[in-house]
Parts: sequence; structure tokens; C-alpha cells
Amino acid sequence: MSHILSGIFPAIITPFNAEGQLDTIALTANIKRWNQYGLRGYVACCSTGEAPLLTDDERAQLIRTVKQTMLEGMTLIAGTGRESTAQTIEACRSAAKNGADAGLVIAPGFFKTLITPEALLKHYRAVAEAAPIPILVYNMPAFTGVTIPPATVLALAEHPNIIGMKDSSGNGPYLNAVIRRKPADFIVLTGNAPTLAQAFLSGADGAVLAVANLIPEICVAMHRATQAQNFAELQRLHKLMQPIAQVVGGSYGIGGLKHAMTLLGYDAGLPRPPLLPATAAQTATIEQTLQDVGLPR
Amino acid sequence: MSHILSGIFPAIITPFNAEGQLDTIALTANIKRWNQYGLRGYVACCSTGEAPLLTDDERAQLIRTVKQTMLEGMTLIAGTGRESTAQTIEACRSAAKNGADAGLVIAPGFFKTLITPEALLKHYRAVAEAAPIPILVYNMPAFTGVTIPPATVLALAEHPNIIGMKDSSGNGPYLNAVIRRKPADFIVLTGNAPTLAQAFLSGADGAVLAVANLIPEICVAMHRATQAQNFAELQRLHKLMQPIAQVVGGSYGIGGLKHAMTLLGYDAGLPRPPLLPATAAQTATIEQTLQDVGLPR
Amino acid sequence: MSHILSGIFPAIITPFNAEGQLDTIALTANIKRWNQYGLRGYVACCSTGEAPLLTDDERAQLIRTVKQTMLEGMTLIAGTGRESTAQTIEACRSAAKNGADAGLVIAPGFFKTLITPEALLKHYRAVAEAAPIPILVYNMPAFTGVTIPPATVLALAEHPNIIGMKDSSGNGPYLNAVIRRKPADFIVLTGNAPTLAQAFLSGADGAVLAVANLIPEICVAMHRATQAQNFAELQRLHKLMQPIAQVVGGSYGIGGLKHAMTLLGYDAGLPRPPLLPATAAQTATIEQTLQDVGLPR
Amino acid sequence: MSHILSGIFPAIITPFNAEGQLDTIALTANIKRWNQYGLRGYVACCSTGEAPLLTDDERAQLIRTVKQTMLEGMTLIAGTGRESTAQTIEACRSAAKNGADAGLVIAPGFFKTLITPEALLKHYRAVAEAAPIPILVYNMPAFTGVTIPPATVLALAEHPNIIGMKDSSGNGPYLNAVIRRKPADFIVLTGNAPTLAQAFLSGADGAVLAVANLIPEICVAMHRATQAQNFAELQRLHKLMQPIAQVVGGSYGIGGLKHAMTLLGYDAGLPRPPLLPATAAQTATIEQTLQDVGLPR
Repeated sequence: MSHILSGIFPAIITPFNAEGQLDTIALTANIKRWNQYGLRGYVACCSTGEAPLLTDDERAQLIRTVKQTMLEGMTLIAGTGRESTAQTIEACRSAAKNGADAGLVIAPGFFKTLITPEALLKHYRAVAEAAPIPILVYNMPAFTGVTIPPATVLALAEHPNIIGMKDSSGNGPYLNAVIRRKPADFIVLTGNAPTLAQAFLSGADGAVLAVANLIPEICVAMHRATQAQNFAELQRLHKLMQPIAQVVGGSYGIGGLKHAMTLLGYDAGLPRPPLLPATAAQTATIEQTLQDVGLPR
Repeated sequence: MSHILSGIFPAIITPFNAEGQLDTIALTANIKRWNQYGLRGYVACCSTGEAPLLTDDERAQLIRTVKQTMLEGMTLIAGTGRESTAQTIEACRSAAKNGADAGLVIAPGFFKTLITPEALLKHYRAVAEAAPIPILVYNMPAFTGVTIPPATVLALAEHPNIIGMKDSSGNGPYLNAVIRRKPADFIVLTGNAPTLAQAFLSGADGAVLAVANLIPEICVAMHRATQAQNFAELQRLHKLMQPIAQVVGGSYGIGGLKHAMTLLGYDAGLPRPPLLPATAAQTATIEQTLQDVGLPR
Repeated sequence: MSHILSGIFPAIITPFNAEGQLDTIALTANIKRWNQYGLRGYVACCSTGEAPLLTDDERAQLIRTVKQTMLEGMTLIAGTGRESTAQTIEACRSAAKNGADAGLVIAPGFFKTLITPEALLKHYRAVAEAAPIPILVYNMPAFTGVTIPPATVLALAEHPNIIGMKDSSGNGPYLNAVIRRKPADFIVLTGNAPTLAQAFLSGADGAVLAVANLIPEICVAMHRATQAQNFAELQRLHKLMQPIAQVVGGSYGIGGLKHAMTLLGYDAGLPRPPLLPATAAQTATIEQTLQDVGLPR
Repeated sequence: MSHILSGIFPAIITPFNAEGQLDTIALTANIKRWNQYGLRGYVACCSTGEAPLLTDDERAQLIRTVKQTMLEGMTLIAGTGRESTAQTIEACRSAAKNGADAGLVIAPGFFKTLITPEALLKHYRAVAEAAPIPILVYNMPAFTGVTIPPATVLALAEHPNIIGMKDSSGNGPYLNAVIRRKPADFIVLTGNAPTLAQAFLSGADGAVLAVANLIPEICVAMHRATQAQNFAELQRLHKLMQPIAQVVGGSYGIGGLKHAMTLLGYDAGLPRPPLLPATAAQTATIEQTLQDVGLPR
């Protein structure tokens, strides 16, 4: 499967209209624009897409809309992790039915310390057995409070229906511990923009990034510079990426990303409550930062 | 409302049968036994009840079953917090329809740092406005990763439909900061068993406890000793409570609590995946601890 | 030794004069005032005493001054923990020579994760063997980043020259885990003011408190209320203590404590750099808080 | 000053003899071997050098020994941070007298939350004013519990006697926030081996590394590959570095590093108590890891 997963995926935002409803027209417009940048595909229903705030119907509609609008040959990954094993399986089935090529399964995190490595092994294996599409393990400790240990990832990598992982920890030694011992065809995608260049140096196959909603062309260029072993270009893009990554992540949140996207002409709207739009101080910093790096061009 | 919320509430476990389905027969049996211990009421669909692993239908059935089985005069609180404001409102409406007297609204925690005090204020006020039943704010940082600041709780306490809070932080200064400045009729319930006596000394009105599934009589006795200002009795019960609280909380988890309940004759079953049953080492410690304190009697 | 360690000890502040030098005249004046409140003794060279900012000579002078000024029958404990085992032993010898009755040995914390339970066992045993005075183990995770596990404390409690512990974690289950299994003559002192009443309920023998610099009479009264099993009095004092404990601990720091002491007529001065005096906002809150609880009387 | 600080510095270990005393013969032998690898200089009395476990006399002797043995043109940096401002100044004076070219001043960390940005500004400025040699700010949150905010570093960078910083956080966005806005001649050295390549991509001038005790040639080669913009070589060395960095840092500690050095023929000895030698499990992993990467060659 590695050819369909190697490259850059935006963790696409979910646009809502003025009434707070899913705006498939805006979504379609964004996808058509993204389609021109050389992306490997899309990840829908990810945390950047406010998936925990969507209904099951909205998730299905979202997946279908991406499927219809993306280019042929692109890969559609859907976030399908839930707190319960049974509901995670159900989400994989639904995503498959609506056109997803793979499920990205975030570790269940509500119960924190109770989600032991053994619980993770059982959960992911049960999901992998039952899911009609291949799945990727998703390590996102900042949101879940749970780190999937590298040894657990490597044990799961042996399952034929677990084809890769996304790691958003930004923890270099973690990523490296997985990459060093993984089977050759187990795909590793990073979800951390500030360490993207380091992830590529370490051998990551690609990335699923919030920032790729905003600057897909820069993310794709970093991947290409890596493949071309072009040091000067990778360094240039790495330095360009850093300030942008800082203001469309962390405490700036999804409101900040959506504001930045609006500035660059995307149809992004506002986040859904309880998430707030970017504050005035945040929008000012975002605007200054984009201007500093020469965006929009 | 304070008379209907002052006292001990178990955060009731949800029994599942051998097929993993909600077992209302077991639930009914447990409630009938709990009914004899002087509890103030029940909290259904709480984290101890594995609410994040239940479907909406199961939650409704659970609430209805408790409502039908509890004694007249008891209060039924239902966990109604969700990640989105809209779904939280919907959960309050559903709980009310099924018989809940109040909604216990855990802070949305998936997005962690994005859930600012301002986001919390807007969320809880929107929920309070729309909910057909009064709500309690629920601070549970260990699971949500979000602390609702005391100043936010106090601001929310002014809303007529926000009648109290549950605090499971176990943080004495936090609880005290709320109690010192709260309106007289704003109810404060602790959710932390090891610090129960301290919470009572600080002026808490009652408690919502996982351990009250197992030893409701000891929890109720601690509340009564406090009301009677009986130091020796409170100290005796406090010391009795400590080892029990340690093995039915923390890393022992819901699997540990359910195992301990089974040992004492409750119909508790096993947790739902990905939660695991207690390990052999855990069950041995639980059995030894109960024996040490003379349970079952 | 338990009779000489049961009760309240202030973790005494170290006054500096306008030139930043140790002010033994101010110290003597403070001790003479403290002497009238029924304290069990004093702890010199503790973190509240800014020990990490003192020279060895200053520490010796401080210990000698307390020794000369305290009442007969009082106990003098000196902070003697250092990062190296050898220097900790040397500090115990020096403290003994200058009149200390016991050494309070904080866990070495600079190297954090390298200070394993095994390292702690070897360190404390080597110190206990070589020290000419008995020692107390000191658990202070907020400053050291190291928690001495209860099992390690209990293993150390078997050593004849390790006579007790001070626990400043404020963690109720931790304190309780030690108290439940400790030898009868192993003394447990709490160092956490907000949870003082709970520590007494759990069976702590006494306390070493920063706040006892400021309100020794209230701390002593809480100890006496516990011994008298006087619930109403303990509860009254607990509620009185809470707001005071909050503004002379935590982020208010030693500058805040010294300011509060000055307001109540002690000769406290300012902290030594890099510690800062309380900010204007902090002093305002401190003044308001003392006024709220009716201090000075 | 940037030419004398750009490149690789080992944070040199301090060898002790069988009696636990400073072993200057071993130290001299190690330096003579290190001298041949193209290092920019040495950092003595750093945390890797167990500085918190050394006496003032030992520190002086250590600095003098390095000074006498290093090659002409090399730079000698000495760790001179202490908890008090006054003692830090005294340490800078002593280091200068004994031959240090610059002082590396770790943030005072014992009092954690009390070490505010304002306290850090005053502390570093007072030290910079009084120190007879230039100083570098040292951010090491894992050991101190204090993060020096980028804005504080940038404010300090304006002082003529504060010539640079070492950052051991391993936090890419932190490093980048400093590098993007720093004055051109303000030197930034990373202290985090796993992220060395990323630090170079971000524009770091060099590194102070524990792992450079063991594999100075690989560290120097990574610096040179960066200067030569040789992508393939940097990537090869980055992958080689990762497993080594993992077993000579983190929980393996100084005992692990010293063991690995002994395996490669350095005269390293054992750490000083309370630090422990590497455990049997750790030495086995270290040996396997070195063998995996073909060391010794």
C-alpha cells in the first residue's frame, strides 16, 4: 500500500456555514483548489476537522464529498477512532461504505491510565480484524493523554490490515524508534509540522498536517526536496515553515487555522462551539506572520 | 435545590451481560440493594459508568431503569457532557425526557488547550440556557486535561440553571477556593474519595463517588459523622476508606471496581472494551485489601 | 524519639538585612516571639529558609542561633540534604556539631529520572550510617521532581537512624500509604498546609510548615483540636487556614510569606536573589486575605 | 565571539578513581584522545560532568586540567550556574581565574515556579555585569523544571556580556523562536542529540553534547555535513546517531554514558553517589546498540 500513502495529506478542516451547518459547497471549493498542489490525498474527520464535534451523518457526508471531488489516484483516509472498540469498528465500516480507502484510528484516550499497552493491542487488533478497509494507528498524546509505545506499534505492524501509523507527538526519538525496526511496507506518517524536516531525515514516508490546509505547496515541496536530497532547498523550506507552523497550531487552534485560511482565500468559516474563533491578538499575530513570510503571494 | 443534592451519590457502574450488552436486570438488582443505604440518589452515565462507551440508546435505557427503580425522593443525575455544545444540549434534553432530575456536564476535553475559560463560560451558559433540567458543572482534569478555574465556576454559579458543581480533582485548595466564595445555594459535590473527609471539613455538600458503588454505607456514614460533628467516627471511617479508595480507583480502574463489587455480591460484570478486566495482580491486591478491612462482613 | 517530634515546627524563614547578609538579630527576635506559641521546635535550613541560597557558614550560624534562642525541650531539625551523598553526610555532621537534634534530608533531585528508588535507598542508608544525628527522609516532589515511593520510605523506616519523614506532596493517598504500614515509632510530619486537617485525620504526628512562621498559633491549635478530637474547632481552624495557606505558598513564594510576616510584625526582610519580593498584585492580595480573616488581631 | 563557539563541544564527563576522587590522569587521557577529532572545545562542570556532585575545589581542578590539556585555539566553557545569584557570580570569577573562556549559566531551578521571567532577567543581568568572562544562558527544563522563555533569551541577548545560549530542551519550535529573532552574533548551541540535524537545519551554530564524549567524530561530521550542505551524508549520520543518542541519554544516565565510553576505550569510571552505575539490563542494551552501529570500529 505504500505507494498510495507516501506524500502529503492535509488533515482537512470542516467548513461550517453561518448557521453552523456542514458546508459542502465550501468544502468542495477548497478541495478543488488543493487538488492542484501535488498532494497524495486527504484525511477527513481528523481532529483538525473537528471530528469530535460532528454527528455520524455529518461525517458520512464529509467523506462522500471528499471522495467525489478529489482527483483520481488520490487516497482518502478517514478518522475512525472512537472511545469504544465496537463504535470504532462501526465507524470503519461506515467510512468504507462512504468511500474511504483507509481508517485512521486515534487511540481511545478518555480513560487515560486505563488504556494500557495490552488494552491498545486488543483494541487495534479487534478493529483491524473487523474493518473492511486497512487501518493506521494514530498516536496523538497531546489530545488523548495516551502514548502508544513503539513496541506496541511494532507488534501491531505485523497485522496484515494495519498498514501504517500517524505520529503527531513531535517526539524525534519516538518516531525513530518506530522507523528503525518497522517492516519495510509499514507506512509512517508524521503529524507534526515543526519537525517535518527531521521526520523526513529519519525516514518518514509522508505527513498528515493541519498546516497543509494552508500551505500545501510548501509541504509538498519539502517532501520533494527530501526525495531529491536537496539540502539547501529543504533548509530554506524548513525555515519558511517554522513561523507558519507556530501560528496555525498549538494555542492558536482550529480558529487560528481557519482565520489564516480565509486570509489566503480558502472558504474556511469559523469553528463549531465550544471551540472559539481566533482572538483579536491571535489574528493580528497570524496576519503579521503570514506577511513576514510573503503570503499570500 | 440544595436539599435534593446534599448527600452521597454513587457514580453507578453500568453492568454488561456475557454478550457485552447493557444488563438492566443486573442494574435493577444493584439499585435495589443500594436503595437501603441512605443514599441521596444516583448518578448515571458518569465516567465510572463507562458513558463514553455507551450508545445514545443505551444511555436512555440506563436513565430510565434507574428512574424506575430508585426510591421516591431520591435524585437522579445524568452525565450529559459531550465534546460539542450542541450535542451536550441534546444530551440534556434526552436525559430530561427519560427522567433525569439534573445533568452533570463534564468539561469538553478533547481539544485541551483550546478549551479556554472563555470557551467554558460560553459552553456552559449555552447549555444552561437550553437544558430543560438544571445542570452541574463537572471538573475532572485527570480525564479531560482541562481544569475549570474557580473564577469560571463562580461566574457560572450566577446562572439560575447552573445549580452546582462536581469536582473530582482531589485538589483541596481548588475546592476551597470555590466553596469560600460561592452563593449559598450553589451545591458543591466532591468526586474524590481519598479526600472525602477533607472535603466535608471544607464545607462540601456531598459527594459523587465510584467507591459508593461498593461501600455506600461507609460513604453515607462519613456524611452523617460530619453532620453530627463526630470527630472520632469521621477519623475511624476516613482510615477505613483510604485503602479501599486506593484499590477501586486510579490504575485499578473500572475493571477493579467491578471485580470488588462482584466480591461483595453486586452484579457488576466486566468493563466494555477497550477497558480491560482487572489483572490477576490487581484482583489479588483488591481481595487482600477488602479482607484487611473486614469486607464482606 | 517520637515525643520530641510530635507537634508543629515552623520551617523558619531566614531574614537578611539591607545588605543581603544573614540577620541573626532579626532571627533571634522572631524566635523569641515564636517561643510563646507552643511549637514543638524549629526546622532551620529548609527550602522556606532559602537554604539553597545560603553558604555553609551561613547555615552553621543559622543553626547555632536557633539553638541558642529556642526554649529548653524544643527540638531543632536542620535541613541537611545535598545533591551528593558525601556532601549530605558532611552537612549532617556540621549540623550536629552546631546543635541540631536531627537532619531533614531532602531527596537529591537535580538528576530527576536518574534518582531511582534503588539510588534513594543507597543514598539514605549511607547518610543514616554516617550521620551523628538521626535523620528524617524528606519527600518534596514539587521542588525536586522526585517522589520517594511509599515502599522506599517503609524500607528506610527499618533503619535505626532514620526516625521519620516529612512529606510535602499534599497527596493524601501517598501519606496514607506510608502511615498505614509504618512502624509505630516512625514519625510522619506533613509539610502541606492546605491538607493539614486531613493529614491529622490520617494519623500524621505533626507538621513542618512555612505558614507556621506566620500563624504558629493557628497551626498549634489545629494540632490540639485533633488531639482533643474536637471536630467543630478543627473545622473552624481548617477553614481559617485555607485562604492564608493559599497566599503564603505556591506562586506567592517566599517573598509573599516574608511580606505577610512583616505585616504581622515579624522581622522578615526580603528574599535573596534570584528570588524576588512579592509583586504589588501579590502584596495586595495578601493584605486583603489577612484582613478578611481578621489578622493581625 | 562566534568563531570560537561554532562547532561541537562535548559536555565532558568527570572521571573518578576507585576511591571516588577526581581522576585528573584519566581526564587528561580522555582529552588527549578527544583533541584529535576536530572539536571546537570543551564544556567542563556541566550536568553530564556531575557538577552538582563536585566541590568547588574539584571544579577548579577540573577546569585547570582541561585548560592545560586542550589544543591551542580550542574554547573552554565552564558550567557556572548556581541557585543564588551571588554564588553564580563567584563561580564565574573562579572559572575565569582557572582558565575558562566563558561561563555556561544554567537557570536556577530549585524554586521552580518562583523563578519567573523577571527573576531570570535580573539574575542573568546581574551575573553578566559581574562576570569577568562572557556568559551563555542555559535552558535545561528537564533538570531545572524552568523554561527560559524565548522572549527572555532575546532580551538577554542584548547584553554585551551574554554571548549566546545552550538549549537542551529538544523543543524545535523553542529553538526556532530564538534563532529567528536573535542578533546575528548571538550564538545558539543545542544540547539535544536526537534533534541535532534539525537544530542545524534551523540554523544552530553548534552543539554541547553528552554523546560527544563517546562519538565526537560523528558529531563533528554532522556539523561538517551541514556546512557542506550534504543531504545524504547528514541523513546517514542522523540515522546512525539516533540509536546511540537513545542509550547514552535519558534514563540510561551518566552511568550508561560512562559504561559506553569504557567500552570504546575511554577512561570513564563510575558515577558518584547517589548516581548509580548502569544496571545489567542497561549495559546489555548499550553493548548491543554499539555493536549494531559497528562500534568500536
